[in-house]
Order: sequence, then structure tokens, then C-alpha cells
Amino acid sequence: MTPLPTRASNFSAWYNELVVRAGLAENASVRGCMVIKPYGYAIWEKLQAIFDAAFKETGHVNGYFPLLIPKSYFSKEAGHVEGFAKECAVVTHYRLKMAEDGRSVVVDPAAKLEEELIVRPTSETVIWSTYKNWIQSYRDLPILLNQWCNVVRWEMRTRLFLRTTEFLWQEGHTAHATQAEAEAEALQMLHLYERIVTDYMAIPLIKGTKTLNERFAGAETTYTIEALMQDGKALQVGTAHYLGQRFAKAFEVTFTNQSGIRDYVWGTSWGITTRLMGALIMIHSDDDGLVLPPKIAPIQVVMVPIYKTEAERAAVVAQLSSCKALLIAQGVRVQLDDRATRKPGYKFAEYEQKGVPIRIALGPNDLQNKTVELARRDTKEKVTIPMDHLTQQVTDWLEAIQTHIYQRALSVHQARTLLVDDYPTFKKLVAGTGGFLMAHWDGTTETEEKIKAETKATIRCIPLDDNEEPGYCIYSGKPSKRRVVFAQAY
Amino acid sequence: MTPLPTRASNFSAWYNELVVRAGLAENASVRGCMVIKPYGYAIWEKLQAIFDAAFKETGHVNGYFPLLIPKSYFSKEAGHVEGFAKECAVVTHYRLKMAEDGRSVVVDPAAKLEEELIVRPTSETVIWSTYKNWIQSYRDLPILLNQWCNVVRWEMRTRLFLRTTEFLWQEGHTAHATQAEAEAEALQMLHLYERIVTDYMAIPLIKGTKTLNERFAGAETTYTIEALMQDGKALQVGTAHYLGQRFAKAFEVTFTNQSGIRDYVWGTSWGITTRLMGALIMIHSDDDGLVLPPKIAPIQVVMVPIYKTEAERAAVVAQLSSCKALLIAQGVRVQLDDRATRKPGYKFAEYEQKGVPIRIALGPNDLQNKTVELARRDTKEKVTIPMDHLTQQVTDWLEAIQTHIYQRALSVHQARTLLVDDYPTFKKLVAGTGGFLMAHWDGTTETEEKIKAETKATIRCIPLDDNEEPGYCIYSGKPSKRRVVFAQAY
Repeated sequence: MTPLPTRASNFSAWYNELVVRAGLAENASVRGCMVIKPYGYAIWEKLQAIFDAAFKETGHVNGYFPLLIPKSYFSKEAGHVEGFAKECAVVTHYRLKMAEDGRSVVVDPAAKLEEELIVRPTSETVIWSTYKNWIQSYRDLPILLNQWCNVVRWEMRTRLFLRTTEFLWQEGHTAHATQAEAEAEALQMLHLYERIVTDYMAIPLIKGTKTLNERFAGAETTYTIEALMQDGKALQVGTAHYLGQRFAKAFEVTFTNQSGIRDYVWGTSWGITTRLMGALIMIHSDDDGLVLPPKIAPIQVVMVPIYKTEAERAAVVAQLSSCKALLIAQGVRVQLDDRATRKPGYKFAEYEQKGVPIRIALGPNDLQNKTVELARRDTKEKVTIPMDHLTQQVTDWLEAIQTHIYQRALSVHQARTLLVDDYPTFKKLVAGTGGFLMAHWDGTTETEEKIKAETKATIRCIPLDDNEEPGYCIYSGKPSKRRVVFAQAY
Repeated sequence: MTPLPTRASNFSAWYNELVVRAGLAENASVRGCMVIKPYGYAIWEKLQAIFDAAFKETGHVNGYFPLLIPKSYFSKEAGHVEGFAKECAVVTHYRLKMAEDGRSVVVDPAAKLEEELIVRPTSETVIWSTYKNWIQSYRDLPILLNQWCNVVRWEMRTRLFLRTTEFLWQEGHTAHATQAEAEAEALQMLHLYERIVTDYMAIPLIKGTKTLNERFAGAETTYTIEALMQDGKALQVGTAHYLGQRFAKAFEVTFTNQSGIRDYVWGTSWGITTRLMGALIMIHSDDDGLVLPPKIAPIQVVMVPIYKTEAERAAVVAQLSSCKALLIAQGVRVQLDDRATRKPGYKFAEYEQKGVPIRIALGPNDLQNKTVELARRDTKEKVTIPMDHLTQQVTDWLEAIQTHIYQRALSVHQARTLLVDDYPTFKKLVAGTGGFLMAHWDGTTETEEKIKAETKATIRCIPLDDNEEPGYCIYSGKPSKRRVVFAQAY
């Protein structure tokens, strides 16, 4: 196998190649769409299972709403239409017919829809139009609903996982009787996201609120978790929106409260997408390929038999099979790769590229010595240990790897989170090593947009922490209550 | 609550009302689309989990292919285009813009696609166009891939779950080095479907092959499992297609076999859909609502506290909570409904309509007597038993209910599977009580179409069994090798 481009030489080429070579995804023949390959999908399934269980533990249920949304729905919420009307796949016809050449197909002009349908870019409109019929009284609230589905946003510049015309996601849409409950729900989901992304994906985060300018189209408050990639750019990993009564007002969703008074319903929405896969890849991987946190690795341990003769093969594979059974009994996800069509060296490189946390190799000498060789993907450390210690060593290493890659990512995150107090330094950093730049800002959209136009850095969030140290805006010099987080972003 | 329409008076109205009232699904504002409500989706999730585990046990992996397919792909396989071109949602534009009134949105005529995109009605075309790049040699085979997703087929007459413009499904698409392996795969999946639908959903089935006329557009052989609804109509529950080399030829997917010879790849595809929900409902339910097999019921046991005073309430709920913990420890899915806003009678009717297999009621007298009342949904049997026996009784009943509803459905299935030897009787039966009519057929599409035109009965399948008794076609009188299964179908 030819080596990957290095991160230092071309981060973007490294990413694109890695995604394909590790078997995660590839570009589809349709512009901007991707094929998620089985190994990539297996990671997504693991994430889905973890998030879904957490949603259910917090009282949410799943449902499913239509893919196709009437065009008129999008103009009901003024902020929403601005944000989404630009980038929609529009269904205008419902039939094809054979062309006159008798071989190709053409759109049947007789089958034009009266009202065009939009392939959902997000489902607030169709869901709130349905909630109108579900909600009469406070007894019908809260509604704590989520759906796992696909959405389409017509992106001009696309990249696998990070920005694709179609992507997979979950979208939670909740309805509440009080403002306080809706606000608490949005924050609860932000914290749930933060916990899972940190604990399972080993990704360090900053959490905060979006500025007016970066807010979700139709939200009163957008909460976000943001991560820093190895190239110093930020990636928005998940968002939770407090919608106030906006969609309730747009779709006339009212209820009778406990005092018998009619009021509009309060809402939230929140989502994570296949973009998470991009963050996972760009945070932990190295020039040899993917590095996966053991907690979400589809294969935690791969076993490669080493042999020359058929007799050696049988003995080695037999020993590995019994080790495999032992490890599976401990809940470890193991794959024994006994393909005869590939050499061990090829397999080593393949699983390295796929980021399998631990590799076990066993040959005839090991059999004689009752030993086994283990290699760690993250540190490349290799050890030969007595066979008896295998289970313990694997268990210890899986834990150690999970901790180590989080700590490693956290060090980078911390080293690149910088206090910046003057605009020349700010510009130099943004154009150079990037990072999360903690700077004072005067709170105006005008300043935010000027900084963006001049540096391509945006305000990733106003942090949710207690560091309320006042200062002066790096751009306008006007007073500022606290630092905000700037970065160039994916 | 007003009662449901009865099955005898209006089966169709009974079905439609039941689906909505049991909280399974409802019509969306978009024509022909449905909203799958949380209780309905919870059943679908159970089914998904069972099927998905079985797919993985048989070596399949999941992936994801794009929703949008270039129009030209559909004309590459001649049979396929005939079957699917009629009923497609066509994306022609990728942008909306504000109308001149400044309030509504219109399609931006400048954003017209060069080639229209079709919202997938099924994914053979996009998947085989991708397999072309994945397959070079026999070493790359087999590919055993599945995806869970949504599809759109523009149906004119729609009914919740049974026939909707958008539905959810899984579609398996496998690629093989030999004809024998592909044929075995299609049959393996048919048997997997049969086993799960019978064992978990308690639905009796006939399995067989489709006639040329009813075959999947692009298949060499279509295998099907068919079930009989309470109104005597058939429902196709799942299909598996042996595709031969058709899609490989259409998309030029070749490989080098072990002898070094280049050949086309052999394929299969197979799927089950949210239509299964329709079968589940129409097979087991009664005039009081849904009846669910315990193995797939989201709630297997519901607990309703009976009380007058607040003190009674506290004591009864405390006792039920500890019973609940015991049952959950046994792996039983229990819900304790302690809503103060609803009376017990209301709750009884609600859970009856939702088909919860076992209802437990507990009041102050029970506390005193150390007893508890249980009611079975399927037989309406009620018993009061010592509290100590609760876990055993629940475990026994869950098993008994699963067996009983299967046996009950099987009796109906058997009683309505009839040998018919003359056309007048055939016509009378089809127009009357329906059922699976086992009749001789001369094997021609002409006869099949005439019978369909005259009676609306179609050949559901040529059974996969050993009853190869010869006879004479009920329509043409020509010789026939074996009986086939006729029925009117959903």
C-alpha cells in the first residue's frame, strides 16, 4: 500500500484519502452525496446505539415524520425560511416515462405537482404542523420525541462526512408547557451530547451559546459543542436549540394550561449528524491512518496468525480461536483474520489504517514459548507477554488507550486554546496555527462580520463557564463583558 | 371513548381507525405519506432489532447509499425501468427563493438540475453502480450488505402502513462469485424472514415463488412470504430476489474468478418494510383494538393502580413499584401508569386498544388480601392470584399468549386455505369470504391476467412445498403440474 499524504504536508488530502482507504465512506456518483461503507457505518451504528439509549433514559421516544414537506411550510417561520430556502432539493414531478427513442426515460410533464415538495433539510415545520393536532391541554405535554433519518441540504462545497448534500442525523423535537421546562430541556440535551462525545469519542469540547449571527434559523438560543481539529480549525459537533414559542406561533400550536388559560407551546430541537464521524477522524488519527477510541471501535482487537506451513497455520489459528472465545466472554469485540489470500504484513497495515486499537499476532514460536505479541495502535507500543496474561493485558490496554487518546487530544486542545488581546496577533494566529482564540468582542454583529470578512474566523460560541472577566474588544476597542471563542471552522 | 367500527361491519374502516387510535400512525399533511407515532415506531424498532441481529448472524453488514439517484440509472436495466419509472418523485431544482410578495417562497428557475434526480424507490441501480468499483476479483466477494432507509414510490391509492408514498424498509443487496451461491443466499433470506415473522410476529405464512407477471422488476426469481388477513385478503409480507447477472450486466460489474476468467457478478436483493406493521395489525387484532404478540410488544405488562384516597394511592403505587422491579429483573417490559389525570376505566380501555398483552390492576383490597388481578388481552380472561405468584403467572401468560395467538391465526389460515377445482366456485369464493385458494393453473400469463381481470384475484405464489399433484387449469382446462395460491391481495 502506498502511504497516506501526511497531515503536515496536506491535511485536507490526508483526510480525504484516509476516509476512503480506511473503508469509512466514498463519494457517490451523485454530486455531493456519499456512500457510507460498512466499516464507517459500523462506527455510526455504535454512536447511534449510545445516543439512542441516552435519549430513552431521559424519557424520549422515537417516531418518524415524512421526508417530503410542502413548500409553503417553509415560509411560515420568518427566520427559518431565510436559513433554509437557499439550499433545498425540490420535487416538482411524480412520474417518468419512456422517451421517444424507447430507451431512455424522461420526466412526464403531465405529472407536475400542484405544490412543490421539499426534501427535508430539517423537520421543525412538518413536526410542528403535526403537533398542532396532538396538543390541546397541558395533559398532552411534554412531547419528548426524536427521529433518526436522512436530510438533504444543497451544499456547494462538499467533503465526506463534514459537509454532504445528504447526511444522516437524529433530530429531537420537544414541546413543553413552560418556558423554564423548554430551556432546561435544551440544556439537558447539550450536556448529554457533551458527556457522550467526551466519554465515548474521547473528544475534548468547549460548550457555549451561538451569537445571533450563527444561531439556528428559527431559534431563540442555540447551544453548541465545538471541538478543535488537529489542523487548528474548529468543528461544530452538536447543537441544541431553545425555540421559544416561535414554531408554535408559526403553526398555531396552543394549549390550555393548568390555570385554564390558552397559551402557545414552548419548543426545543437538537441534533447530531454523521459530521461527528469527521470530528472523530480529524481529532485522533495519524499519518498511518485512523485511531479509534476503544469504546466505539467496531473491532477492538484484531488477531493475525503468522505461519509458513499448513500445520503451523492450523495450530496457530486453533490457539487464536480459543483466545478469541475468552476475550468475547469478557465483552471484547474481536476479529480473527485468517484469510489465506493476504500476508500478515498486508493485514498489519490494513488494521493500522482502520484504527483497530489492539493487534494480536501469534506465530509458531509463540506457541512453543506460550507467549503472544500485542501492539497498541495509539502509541505503536509492542509487547510480548505470557499467553496467560492476555485477557488482563487486553482489558488494561483498552482502558489505557481510551484514556490516553483523550488526554492527548486534551493537551492539543489546551495548548491551542489561547488568550488573545490584540488584533494583529489574532490575525497572525488565525492565518497560522489556528486554534480556539479567546478574545474580547463588543457584542455587535457588525464587528463579528468584519472579523469574519477579514480573517475567515467566526465566533464559535460564547462559553458556558464562569470566566466573566471584562475587557476591550480586539477589533473595536469597545468594552466587553467576557471573552468569546473565535476560530476558523469547517 | 367511542367504540371502533367492527371488523364485520367495515373491515377497512376498522383498520384505519385502529391504526390512529392505538397511536401507531396517522396520515401526514403530504398526500399519501404517514407520520409513524411513537407507539407504532416502538414496534418497528423491535422488529428492526430482531431482523438486524439475524442479518448480522448470517454475516451481513450495514451501509448507506444515497437517497437521490440520477435519472439515467433507471434506464440501464430494461425490466427495472418498466417497473419503477411510473411512480417516482423527481427532483428537478435545488433552490427556493423569496417570491416578489416578499412573504412566500418559489422555486428558483435558475437552479434547475442538468440531470434530474429520482428519490430512490429501491436502490439496485445506485448500489450496483458502486459495486462496479468495489469488485475486481473473487477475493472481493461475496459482498453481503444491507441498508435500513426510507424509499418513495408515488402511489395513487394509499393506506397507512399498507401502501404509502414514503415507507421505511431494509434492502439487502448481495454480490456473489457463483450462481449457486446467489441462489442459496436468496433462499436463506426467505427462510430467515419466514422464521422471524412466524416466531416473533406469530403470523402463519405460505412461501413460494412469484409468477413472471408478479416478479420484481429486474429479478430472475422472486421468492415471497404471503399471509392471510382476517378479511380473507392476502398480504405480501417480504420478498427475496435472485437477480442472476442482470444488474451486473446493466452496470458492467465483472470479476476475475479463481480460474482467472472474467465473468459477471451474481446478485440478490431482499426486503421487508413498514408494511409488516399492517400485517401484524390485520392478523391478530379484534373489535376492541390491537392484539400484540408478547415477543414484540413494546409494553408487555401494564400496571394500573386502583385507589380513592391519597393514602391508598401511595400504598398501591408502592406495591406496584416493587412488583415492577421484580418483573423487570426477569426481563419483562413493564409500564406502571400512575397518571392522576386519568381514571382506571379510561386506562383499561386505552391499553386494550394498544394491545398490551397483560394488564395488572391492584387496589386496597388486594393489598389487604395479598392478591393481584391480571387480565389477558387475547382471551380477555381475568384472574386474581396471590401476590407471590405474580412473576410466575406473568412469565407463563406471556408464553401462552404468544402461542395462543399464533395458533388462533393458524386455524383461520388453515380453514381459509381451500382446494378449488372449478371456476364458478373459485369466483364465488373470491367474491365472498376470500382466502388462499389453491387451484390449478396452466402456467400462462394470459390465463393469469384473465383471472385477475375477472375476479381481481392474483397468483400470490407457486408454493415451495412437495405437493406436486397434477391436474387441470380451472380457467383453461389445460394440464397443470401443481396447484398455485390465488387470492385478492392488499
